[in-house]
Amino acid sequence: MTKQWIAGVDLGGTTTKIAFITLDGEIIKKWEIPTDNSNEGKNITVNIANSISEKLKELGQTKDQLAGIGMGAPGPVNYETGVMLNTVNLGWQSNFPLQASLEQAASLPALIENDANCAALGEMWKGAGNGAKDIVCVTLGTGVGGGVIANGNIVQGVNGAAGEIGHTTAIPEGGAPCNCGKTGCLETIASATGIVRLAKEALSMPGVAGELAEKYSSDGSVSAKDVFDCARNGDSIAIKVLNEVACHLGLVLANIANTLNPEKIVLGGGVSKAGDILLNAVKSQFERFSFSSVKDSTKLALATLGNDAGVIGAAWLIKNKLLEC
Amino acid sequence: MTKQWIAGVDLGGTTTKIAFITLDGEIIKKWEIPTDNSNEGKNITVNIANSISEKLKELGQTKDQLAGIGMGAPGPVNYETGVMLNTVNLGWQSNFPLQASLEQAASLPALIENDANCAALGEMWKGAGNGAKDIVCVTLGTGVGGGVIANGNIVQGVNGAAGEIGHTTAIPEGGAPCNCGKTGCLETIASATGIVRLAKEALSMPGVAGELAEKYSSDGSVSAKDVFDCARNGDSIAIKVLNEVACHLGLVLANIANTLNPEKIVLGGGVSKAGDILLNAVKSQFERFSFSSVKDSTKLALATLGNDAGVIGAAWLIKNKLLEC
Repeated sequence: MTKQWIAGVDLGGTTTKIAFITLDGEIIKKWEIPTDNSNEGKNITVNIANSISEKLKELGQTKDQLAGIGMGAPGPVNYETGVMLNTVNLGWQSNFPLQASLEQAASLPALIENDANCAALGEMWKGAGNGAKDIVCVTLGTGVGGGVIANGNIVQGVNGAAGEIGHTTAIPEGGAPCNCGKTGCLETIASATGIVRLAKEALSMPGVAGELAEKYSSDGSVSAKDVFDCARNGDSIAIKVLNEVACHLGLVLANIANTLNPEKIVLGGGVSKAGDILLNAVKSQFERFSFSSVKDSTKLALATLGNDAGVIGAAWLIKNKLLEC
Repeated sequence: MTKQWIAGVDLGGTTTKIAFITLDGEIIKKWEIPTDNSNEGKNITVNIANSISEKLKELGQTKDQLAGIGMGAPGPVNYETGVMLNTVNLGWQSNFPLQASLEQAASLPALIENDANCAALGEMWKGAGNGAKDIVCVTLGTGVGGGVIANGNIVQGVNGAAGEIGHTTAIPEGGAPCNCGKTGCLETIASATGIVRLAKEALSMPGVAGELAEKYSSDGSVSAKDVFDCARNGDSIAIKVLNEVACHLGLVLANIANTLNPEKIVLGGGVSKAGDILLNAVKSQFERFSFSSVKDSTKLALATLGNDAGVIGAAWLIKNKLLEC
């Protein structure tokens, strides 16, 4: 029997995750390689192709075992053509033909999708989405990303910019500046960076006290994890920051749900590791701001695949293509 | 040649619009009948079926001319089963099997969709959407409704509640009460009713003067149209109301666009007849709040089909079904 596996690739700015995945979405083997951005990014696809070949050899397999390579890439992608539209972080020129480059290097069929969309597909297929055909995934990491799946398919949008949930305007007037050039984006509040910013703001008030304040004054720094840990212990400043995050995030998610009424909204990324203390705070705001029949039907959930969502979702691209044939 | 036409029906609480439409979406004949809500709504589908039969006879045609009946209905619909989930306004019990009832009365295949979704499909097919596969339609009427089309298909959501854009929370704290039970919904601001409310609020301030204030004091009432007419003449109170509407509507639409990056967002309904003065005010706020690559690609436009959008979109349901076969 041949073509029993798919190679799923999650291309990051510094590290590339690769996995061999069965047609049922089970990971057989996963590993990482550094992403080599030098030489205008010309080594990236060659390194991935070589690494896949070596790993196949280690496992006593040949390329015949692979149905193809699905890859998530960090930036807007034209899914039809496999061209990356904006790839500054990876050294490539704009409009880099990533799919063609990977297919040539690996001599295998390849499909490319935005990495946040791949994470969403992964959660839909094997994670918190549990096969639901309408889900929205929000990745709360250093930034805030998103993927929207409607009727079982990724919504890419006309310019590949669908899912830019991090750049939803949460504070219309007087919000903090965002890297995107706007102000008041959700990313300035609900990302790890945003939570740290809010915490530092709260801790700069005169007369603050408590666990988070003590930690800040002894370490000279504070992390999003500190905020959640201290909130769990009842620290009032940490709880205030948590509530501020939850209020804005819950409102944005409720408005997305009022528009799309997905079966699930899945929260992933490093910040979501805070777990129930975050989920429950966001849920209570979500319920406040969502239309009654949406509130009754759209569920919030934590992502379950962690760092594997990207490679699994990337593999789904190939799986789905095979099903269409 | 048989089955050259589709019957498109737009079922309203007081009036039902019906049209014979070609497979290319051109209206051959359109007319209206009153909607008879008495007798637990039992006459509704029978009246529609009879009216279609009579009109065919008038035109010297038989039922063989019709490929089927597509109908938009005012409320959440399970498209797969053709069951209406909530139909208080029409006299039916909850979970009324509308598709089955219409098919039995008319002896023709029927498909049912929510009326706002039908309007969106109509605009996609023959109106402002101009064939775009990703569009969002917002109907600014007595209330605010919406329809979302992604990848060429209506997004219904898990509970049929997708597109409830009118119940997006525009004012999280201290907003006006909405019919839905929440406060601060977009509908309380950007519907005809909402605009009148804002105008009356502005006109209740001490020392107001100008065209809108004079109209209000002489007529004892003010309409959304009055606000736009006076704004067009430079009346400062009317312009203030217009800007308030545009600010909230522009923000909500920008956030929808940041999530879905549709090719077009189409504004329809009675309020949209205000035309460019509304469109331009909303555009400027939309551009302020949208992510750069969304701003560059998602266009705002006025609906072009007017009251015909519903029957044309309803006919599209049948057209699309025929294409699938």
